[in-house]
Amino acid sequence: MVKYQDLSKGKKGKFKVGIVGASGYTGSELIRILFTHPDVSIKVVTSEHHAGERFSKIHPQFSGLVDIRLSTAKELVEADLDLVFLALPHGISMNFVRDHGYKRFRIIDLSGDFRLKSAQTYEEWYKLSHVAKNDLKKAVFGLPEIFRTQIRNADLVANPGCYATSAILALAPLLKNKLIKSKEIIIDSKSGMTGAGATAKPSTHFPEVTDNFSVYGLLNHRHTPEIQTQLSLFSKQKIEVLFTPHLIPIDRGILSTVYASPKVEVCSEQLIEIFTKFYATEHFIRIVSDPPAVKNVRGSNYCDLFVTYDKRTKRIIVISVIDNLVKGAAGQAVQNMNIMFNLIENKGLRQLPLCP
Amino acid sequence: MVKYQDLSKGKKGKFKVGIVGASGYTGSELIRILFTHPDVSIKVVTSEHHAGERFSKIHPQFSGLVDIRLSTAKELVEADLDLVFLALPHGISMNFVRDHGYKRFRIIDLSGDFRLKSAQTYEEWYKLSHVAKNDLKKAVFGLPEIFRTQIRNADLVANPGCYATSAILALAPLLKNKLIKSKEIIIDSKSGMTGAGATAKPSTHFPEVTDNFSVYGLLNHRHTPEIQTQLSLFSKQKIEVLFTPHLIPIDRGILSTVYASPKVEVCSEQLIEIFTKFYATEHFIRIVSDPPAVKNVRGSNYCDLFVTYDKRTKRIIVISVIDNLVKGAAGQAVQNMNIMFNLIENKGLRQLPLCP
Amino acid sequence: MVKYQDLSKGKKGKFKVGIVGASGYTGSELIRILFTHPDVSIKVVTSEHHAGERFSKIHPQFSGLVDIRLSTAKELVEADLDLVFLALPHGISMNFVRDHGYKRFRIIDLSGDFRLKSAQTYEEWYKLSHVAKNDLKKAVFGLPEIFRTQIRNADLVANPGCYATSAILALAPLLKNKLIKSKEIIIDSKSGMTGAGATAKPSTHFPEVTDNFSVYGLLNHRHTPEIQTQLSLFSKQKIEVLFTPHLIPIDRGILSTVYASPKVEVCSEQLIEIFTKFYATEHFIRIVSDPPAVKNVRGSNYCDLFVTYDKRTKRIIVISVIDNLVKGAAGQAVQNMNIMFNLIENKGLRQLPLCP
Amino acid sequence: MVKYQDLSKGKKGKFKVGIVGASGYTGSELIRILFTHPDVSIKVVTSEHHAGERFSKIHPQFSGLVDIRLSTAKELVEADLDLVFLALPHGISMNFVRDHGYKRFRIIDLSGDFRLKSAQTYEEWYKLSHVAKNDLKKAVFGLPEIFRTQIRNADLVANPGCYATSAILALAPLLKNKLIKSKEIIIDSKSGMTGAGATAKPSTHFPEVTDNFSVYGLLNHRHTPEIQTQLSLFSKQKIEVLFTPHLIPIDRGILSTVYASPKVEVCSEQLIEIFTKFYATEHFIRIVSDPPAVKNVRGSNYCDLFVTYDKRTKRIIVISVIDNLVKGAAGQAVQNMNIMFNLIENKGLRQLPLCP
Repeated sequence: MVKYQDLSKGKKGKFKVGIVGASGYTGSELIRILFTHPDVSIKVVTSEHHAGERFSKIHPQFSGLVDIRLSTAKELVEADLDLVFLALPHGISMNFVRDHGYKRFRIIDLSGDFRLKSAQTYEEWYKLSHVAKNDLKKAVFGLPEIFRTQIRNADLVANPGCYATSAILALAPLLKNKLIKSKEIIIDSKSGMTGAGATAKPSTHFPEVTDNFSVYGLLNHRHTPEIQTQLSLFSKQKIEVLFTPHLIPIDRGILSTVYASPKVEVCSEQLIEIFTKFYATEHFIRIVSDPPAVKNVRGSNYCDLFVTYDKRTKRIIVISVIDNLVKGAAGQAVQNMNIMFNLIENKGLRQLPLCP
Repeated sequence: MVKYQDLSKGKKGKFKVGIVGASGYTGSELIRILFTHPDVSIKVVTSEHHAGERFSKIHPQFSGLVDIRLSTAKELVEADLDLVFLALPHGISMNFVRDHGYKRFRIIDLSGDFRLKSAQTYEEWYKLSHVAKNDLKKAVFGLPEIFRTQIRNADLVANPGCYATSAILALAPLLKNKLIKSKEIIIDSKSGMTGAGATAKPSTHFPEVTDNFSVYGLLNHRHTPEIQTQLSLFSKQKIEVLFTPHLIPIDRGILSTVYASPKVEVCSEQLIEIFTKFYATEHFIRIVSDPPAVKNVRGSNYCDLFVTYDKRTKRIIVISVIDNLVKGAAGQAVQNMNIMFNLIENKGLRQLPLCP
Repeated sequence: MVKYQDLSKGKKGKFKVGIVGASGYTGSELIRILFTHPDVSIKVVTSEHHAGERFSKIHPQFSGLVDIRLSTAKELVEADLDLVFLALPHGISMNFVRDHGYKRFRIIDLSGDFRLKSAQTYEEWYKLSHVAKNDLKKAVFGLPEIFRTQIRNADLVANPGCYATSAILALAPLLKNKLIKSKEIIIDSKSGMTGAGATAKPSTHFPEVTDNFSVYGLLNHRHTPEIQTQLSLFSKQKIEVLFTPHLIPIDRGILSTVYASPKVEVCSEQLIEIFTKFYATEHFIRIVSDPPAVKNVRGSNYCDLFVTYDKRTKRIIVISVIDNLVKGAAGQAVQNMNIMFNLIENKGLRQLPLCP
Repeated sequence: MVKYQDLSKGKKGKFKVGIVGASGYTGSELIRILFTHPDVSIKVVTSEHHAGERFSKIHPQFSGLVDIRLSTAKELVEADLDLVFLALPHGISMNFVRDHGYKRFRIIDLSGDFRLKSAQTYEEWYKLSHVAKNDLKKAVFGLPEIFRTQIRNADLVANPGCYATSAILALAPLLKNKLIKSKEIIIDSKSGMTGAGATAKPSTHFPEVTDNFSVYGLLNHRHTPEIQTQLSLFSKQKIEVLFTPHLIPIDRGILSTVYASPKVEVCSEQLIEIFTKFYATEHFIRIVSDPPAVKNVRGSNYCDLFVTYDKRTKRIIVISVIDNLVKGAAGQAVQNMNIMFNLIENKGLRQLPLCP
């Protein structure tokens, strides 16, 4: 087999990036997307556990294509890099930031460690003491459709959670236009299993999941404060949400069914117009005229949104779908990177949905 | 292979039943359950389309076991039967009832035709004129946990819809105890694909459904008025619900996530106690201490209920799971039949969940 | 919920059985089947890890139904029991047999420890030294359709492997009638994931399995010597097979595609006749006229067999399907128990396939 | 949403292509791949049934991205095009070729109509009279790894069947090196359901397929003569294969388990070397050291091959995996197009596997 690209040697003029944490799904998904990005060269990929092995040894789908040798984080911080993606579990990312800062390279963190603004809220929902409280305040929430301006010059970007992405994009136009009550929001979300990470657990054992469907994280899922924090910040009022995640027996995809109570008179046509206008210049948001299915965005960075109003029960309903590993993680991280590097925002992200 | 039972000859003393509509999933599921029922003999099974063929020809899982020859409905009405199950689509069942009545045999109808009390509501949601308006009024809604007394002597039982079963059982204890507001109920349901019936359609084509998840019937699903009608009847007040069904890429199972607003102060412990007490003498309702998954009831007639209260957002949440073809259709029909025949209610329904 | 049966107190006249190993899928499947068996009382269920807990705590599908407290193996061997099922991993079962024998109760072992006749072959394929070599010789292979007479009086029955069951039943009629060459047999099998057991492993992590299909155990799967040993014993000639197992992303079911070379002239009609005759008096074998699918036997103890001859390439092809947890494990164990107790062979096993 | 590319206006210098048959999966997959191809402009897409509608209306995953209006075939043949893909069912493609020839544009036909060399064999296996017998002879079989030279200048390319691709690539190195017997080849293949096309049928109804596994097309699948014809042509001897296709409950992917009998002495190491050498300069063939899974190539044009020798039973086994819609259909068609246009062979095909 002919190899197309030596990942270890960046072409002149390319941005040089590193990835910390190669063994998880966000790590492998970052590689999948960045591999064909024309302006980026992947210089270092780390895994403390697998250092020295080839990347494709852990992820055989990349066999013969991405055979870069894995490094340690220690080696990475000494490399000449423009940007580092942290594809680490929460609780670990903040140690990296505390220890190495973001002076020598900018950071996009894909964990939950820098998504909340308050260390106290973090400790309450994550049951962990925050070790980089100052950075928590400085971090910019990397949802481009909402915080693009701040992202451009940020040195530390907190890449949003998958559920949070699907929920915030569904609610932002309603809050921006002051259409809904701030404390009667219900977000009933359903996610594919890659959202649970790459580590085998009894709860992810195939026979337990297949042909099954269940609710989890009832009342205490960590994306709840993330959604509340960022929507409050954006809308300049205290937003409270009831968020209920469920597990779909599929690999990728999130569908969120969002219920909100209007505080003014609305109709479906008006809502569609508001959504269309709010996202008019966005690459990755599609306002669709039929309720979307998760497979319509599989493998792509799109978020499809459908909005309607039920006259009978006086509720606004928004259906939002994303691929949790792309727009909900690695794709959005690359979108943030493009913004930070002043590249066209869909560079490397033009892949169409893989459907069926 | 040795055959165990000649279905065409009922043993002395057995109740004699017929099934109208053999080709669908409720028809085959009725046979699966009744085949091992000790007090019932299946005398006639009909299919206008397949009359003359063997039942196992259409449903090869019954090959060598249930080889009864299919009859026409005309033949069935002339047979000596105690009870007839109508496993027909809505709009067809009411013709059978209008034409043949329920004097010569009692009827359990598994379609939606006799579940509403008002012909006008039926016409509004089903887009059909009702042809048996008097029978509509006489029909008893066959949810034993709520209407057992009336079922016992009923001649025409309207077997509940699958979603309606999961939702009503989740809400009845709350309404009985006047705990919740009557117009802020949201039922977010997720169903396996057998709920869509046995007929191939573009929307049930395997590649469109697998690895996918979608919402459908948004704002206009026919189980909405069914839930409202029966809960209103039961609770003696006008109940309004917002019901949103979704499709899970599995064959069997419904999980309903029900959100309600308390009108008095409540706590989780109290809710659990109320549910436990309400269903204390029920065979098929299990109040579980962890949120249930649909596979926990697969192939069985159980409904698992989990209830909790979210102090933060002041909402009651009930999770309800059933097998849509059993407690949501054929199993519940057999439960109704047992009641009508004065048999022990779980006769023929003792099969444990098939999990995993 | 009303409880139907106190499992801890056997009714007078019932056979008393124990199950060693409650946490795996064969353990829970044994309980599922035995729970409704009219002549058997489950007296003890063990789990060293969960001793003291309720069985339904580990298997929530049995919540409120099978709440028996788990014991240790030490407690079990002191109980008054007629028969003990060993639902243990291979390598562990033989220790139990060595330590406790089968004088005080007969044993059906569901592991691979007593399925081979030669300790040397065992050591070669299992990479373990056999600790109960004498018992290995005495054990009867529990495939009723082939070894029924020996099973009746056996004290130690080695319940067959799932793949082995599907393959041996497909080949026995051909070998009995000396129709095929003994060394050109290819068994290409495909199995659902419950065959891999209940313990979470990277290879059973849901996202790795779903929407996927793979081969495993290539050339060295342990059911190879089992098939060879038992077919050789049965046919009184040395049988050699090439066995290739694959993983289907489903929970239950095995389909084996068996290729054999005739050594005499044959035709499809003759083969069908031979199969029909060979299994004429069998409860659980169905000779079907169309190639069967695994769902046709889901949850049941049936094995469906389809046989045909390809004139063009001169090969006999047999398609065999079973539910790996029923006819491939717990169901067959109960069938063996019925034989050992002189009960009608399908007692407790009359449940029809759960399809769809 | 910002649109990236007006598909109706080809940029200067781009190759202009048309696609006949937009409603099927090969049609939509061609669009998915060609959409990001830098040297190609999609000028016309046809659908007799949906002419006038937007493409994204039928395939909502392309909503806002590929909104080209569908044309009739009549309009297409009048357009100025370099190449036309026929994404039509077999039996229909040959009519198009007969009626319009391939003078004004070159043709890549994705149906089975031009894959066999003999009209008689076609009629025998397809049960149809061939209407373009001369073209059948002229057509080049579009498997680049085997027939690249002929493809380059061909005007009519018969794009290989999905199963045939997986089987021929597995067998070619063995036949080229005269290692195996020509009449003892067994190909046991397993395919995802998109292989059955986009039209809903009872056999593709979701509840019938999910949690199921079955064999079909036993002894008479049309890819049998295709594999035999092309392998015979390539190896210059009469090849006979027994081909058995099975259905996996997934959307995409084929895994073929190929059994062959060596006619000379071989060993695994030698086989690996032979395969590695045979495919040394190929972009899309990966010789892998562990048995591959179908998800390792999902959404990509790769074919992963694993080869080994079983000393015990003296058989060579090759495992071959592809994505049936990419390397088994649309991806291979684009690879052929690249060859015909003298482009780098992996242009537009660099997308990495979507896994998990």
